[in-house]
Amino acid sequence: MGGTKNTTTRVGKASFGVSKCTRPARAGLKPDSPVNLDQGDPTMFEEYWRKNKESCDVVIGGSELMSYFSNPHIMCWYLLPELEDSIHRLHSLVGNVSTEGRHIIVGSGSTQLLQATLYALSANSPQPVSVVCAAPYYSCYPELADLLKSGLYKWEGDAYNFDKEGPYIELVTSPNNPDGYIRGPVVNRGDGKVVYDLAYYWPQYTAITHQLDHDIMLFTFSKSTGHAGSRIGWAIVKDEKVARKMLKFMEVMSIGVSKEAQFRAAKILGAICDGYEGFRPIDTENFFEYSKRLMIERWERLREVVNQSEIFSLPKFSQEYCLFSSEFTETHPSFAWLKCKEELKDAQSVLRGQKILARSGTKFGVDPTFARVSMVSREDVFNAFLERLSAPKGAVSNGNQA
Amino acid sequence: MGGTKNTTTRVGKASFGVSKCTRPARAGLKPDSPVNLDQGDPTMFEEYWRKNKESCDVVIGGSELMSYFSNPHIMCWYLLPELEDSIHRLHSLVGNVSTEGRHIIVGSGSTQLLQATLYALSANSPQPVSVVCAAPYYSCYPELADLLKSGLYKWEGDAYNFDKEGPYIELVTSPNNPDGYIRGPVVNRGDGKVVYDLAYYWPQYTAITHQLDHDIMLFTFSKSTGHAGSRIGWAIVKDEKVARKMLKFMEVMSIGVSKEAQFRAAKILGAICDGYEGFRPIDTENFFEYSKRLMIERWERLREVVNQSEIFSLPKFSQEYCLFSSEFTETHPSFAWLKCKEELKDAQSVLRGQKILARSGTKFGVDPTFARVSMVSREDVFNAFLERLSAPKGAVSNGNQA
Repeated sequence: MGGTKNTTTRVGKASFGVSKCTRPARAGLKPDSPVNLDQGDPTMFEEYWRKNKESCDVVIGGSELMSYFSNPHIMCWYLLPELEDSIHRLHSLVGNVSTEGRHIIVGSGSTQLLQATLYALSANSPQPVSVVCAAPYYSCYPELADLLKSGLYKWEGDAYNFDKEGPYIELVTSPNNPDGYIRGPVVNRGDGKVVYDLAYYWPQYTAITHQLDHDIMLFTFSKSTGHAGSRIGWAIVKDEKVARKMLKFMEVMSIGVSKEAQFRAAKILGAICDGYEGFRPIDTENFFEYSKRLMIERWERLREVVNQSEIFSLPKFSQEYCLFSSEFTETHPSFAWLKCKEELKDAQSVLRGQKILARSGTKFGVDPTFARVSMVSREDVFNAFLERLSAPKGAVSNGNQA
Repeated sequence: MGGTKNTTTRVGKASFGVSKCTRPARAGLKPDSPVNLDQGDPTMFEEYWRKNKESCDVVIGGSELMSYFSNPHIMCWYLLPELEDSIHRLHSLVGNVSTEGRHIIVGSGSTQLLQATLYALSANSPQPVSVVCAAPYYSCYPELADLLKSGLYKWEGDAYNFDKEGPYIELVTSPNNPDGYIRGPVVNRGDGKVVYDLAYYWPQYTAITHQLDHDIMLFTFSKSTGHAGSRIGWAIVKDEKVARKMLKFMEVMSIGVSKEAQFRAAKILGAICDGYEGFRPIDTENFFEYSKRLMIERWERLREVVNQSEIFSLPKFSQEYCLFSSEFTETHPSFAWLKCKEELKDAQSVLRGQKILARSGTKFGVDPTFARVSMVSREDVFNAFLERLSAPKGAVSNGNQA
C-alpha cells in the first residue's frame, strides 16, 4: 500500500509512477476583474462530480488504448464498445431519444460532428448546399460552415428569411442556444434536410416531453454532464449512407476520436445510469435531480434580480409535463438571453459596464438589445454575476458609455 | 486498501467505482485470415508500455479536466501545461528540433494540425493555394486537402511536376511515408510555404542528424511512442500570426483537444524523459533504445526474406551519424516500401495472393509495382507477414491472378 502511495505523483511533476490528475485550487475572482460569461463553460457541475470523485475515477495503464481501432466489427470502428453501451443506456434511462437500431458516430464534441453532418448531406452536390438556422441561432454556426470556404455547403443565415431555390440543410437547436425555446424546422420544403442539435435536451434544462426519433440528432458530453474538456459528442443517425459519410469525414479529418476521452465518457455516463438503477451510494443525489435543482435555483435568483433591475427582461417558458421526472416543469436554459430596454440599445455594453462579459445578440443574427450570458459557471462566478447585475443604476449608465 | 480494490471495476462493466482500463486478450491470427498491414497501426510498442504498465498509469477523477480551458495565459488556451512541458522536454532530450521560443499548438493527431496549417497558410488568399508533395507522398494528403472542396487550398499532386504559377504549400515528410527517405523541399520558389511533417523523425526510425528549426513542424504521439488511439499531435510554429490562425481553426473545428488524451500524453512523454534522466527502474530499457533495437531486428529479418524472394526489392539507406545515440545508424522506417519485379506489375496484388494486405503505390502517386506494408504491427502479425512473404513461388503467381 505504501508502495502504491509512493509512486503516485501529482500533475505537473511527470515521473515514472502513477500520475493522478488533481488541479491546483483556483484563485478567487478579483473585485475589479470582469465576470466572463461569454462562453458556456459548464463548470457548475464540477461540484457534483467532486462529491463522487473517488467513485468515478478512471485508471488507464500505459499500454492500454494504443491502437487506432476499437471495434473492427462495427461501422464506427474507433468507438469504444463501453461508450456505445453507455450512450444507449443513458438515452434509454432518460427517454429523450430513441437509439434502437440507429448508428452512433462519435466525434470531438458535437462541433466536429456538425461538420461531419454538413459534409455527409452535401458530398454529392454539384453546387454548395445552403445551410440555415432560425435566428437567434447559435453564434458558432456561421463560422463553422464557412471557415474553409467549402464548395459543398455555404451558410445562408436566418431560416426565416431563406428563399433560395435548391437543396438546403436546416439546423434545429432544441432547446435553442441562445434563448432556450423548444424548436422545430421552419423552412419545411421537400428538398431540405434537418439536423437536430439536441445538446440541451436533458432533464436539468427542460421537460422531456417526447422520445425524439429524427434522422440526425447530435448530443455532447459537455452539456449533458458538464465534461466540456473531454471533447466528446455523438450523433444518432438513421440512414446508413449518411452515417458512412460522416464516418468518412471523421476518418479523413482526425482518424477517429481520443480513446481516453471515450473511456472516461463511458464511465461518467454509466455512473449516472448506475445511480438511477440503485447502484449508487445512498448519500448521493442522482445527477439530473441535483443539476435540475441547481438550474431552478439559479433561474429563480436571476429572475428576481432581473425583475428588480427594470433594465432587462428574460424569455418566459410554459410548464410542460416531463416524462423523465413525472412532473410539470419549465425550461431552465444553460444561457440567459437578456434583452435590455430599447433605449439602451446595446445589452452587451450595458453588461460590460457592470463588469459582466456577455455575447451580443448580433452574433446570433438578431439586434444588439439582446445578449447571452452563461448560467452554468462556477458558483462564485454566478454569485458575482448576480451582484453586479443588481448594481445601482448609476453604474449601469456609466457602463453604457464604456 | 480492501475498499479501493473492491471499487475497482473492469472495462465493459461501468458502475460506480474506479474503472481500470484493461482490454480483453486479443484472439490470435487465423491461418486463412489476411494479415492486415495496410494501415500503420503502431501496436508493436504496446509490449514496452505493458512492461511499464503500473508506472505509467494515469488516474483521472470524475471532477477533473472538465473545463474547455487549460491555461488562459497562453495562446493555445486548451493546452495542458504539463503536456507543453513534456513536449519541450522530449525534444530537448532527443535534440531533433528546436522548440525554444516557438509556439506549440496541439491537435487531434497531426492529421487535424495539417489541415489547421493549410487553413493558416491560405486563409487570406483570393484563389485556392496549391498544395503539393513530392511522390511518393503520404496517401492521405490528397483526400485531406480536397475532402471539403475548400476555396482556400487545393491538392495539385506531385511536387516534381508542379509548374502552376502563384502561391503554393509544399508538404515535406521526412523521413518520408511511404519510403523512409530523408527529404527536403523540391519546388523552392519564393511564393511557397513549406510544412514539415516530422512524424517519423525519432531515434527508433532514423539518425537524428540535425536539430531542425523550420517554420512549421508537425509531430504525432502515434508515431513517437505508439499511442495512436489518443489522437494527439503537436505543431511547432515560428510565426505568431500563423500559430494564431491554426488556433482559430482548432477553436472553430473542435473547440480544442481532449484533456484526458493530453494528460496521458504528458505522462508518457514525461516518462520517456524520466528514463533517460535516471528516474527509471533499473531493469527497464529506455524507450528509444528498445524501439530502435526492435526496428533493426525487424528490418534485418525482412531484408533477409526479401533478398531470398527474388520478387521484391526494398529501399537502401546509408549510415548517418546520430547525435542522439552517438553512433552511426541507418534508417529503419515504420513502413516497408516494397517494389515487385516489373513483369509482375502489381505489388499489392502479389501480396494479396500471399494473404498480406498492403497499400498500392498508386495511392502514393507512383506506379503499382510499389506497395507499402506496415513494419510496426504486433509481433505475431509481423511474424505471419514474414512467413507469408517467404511462401513458395507457386503461391505468388496464383496470388498475382487473384
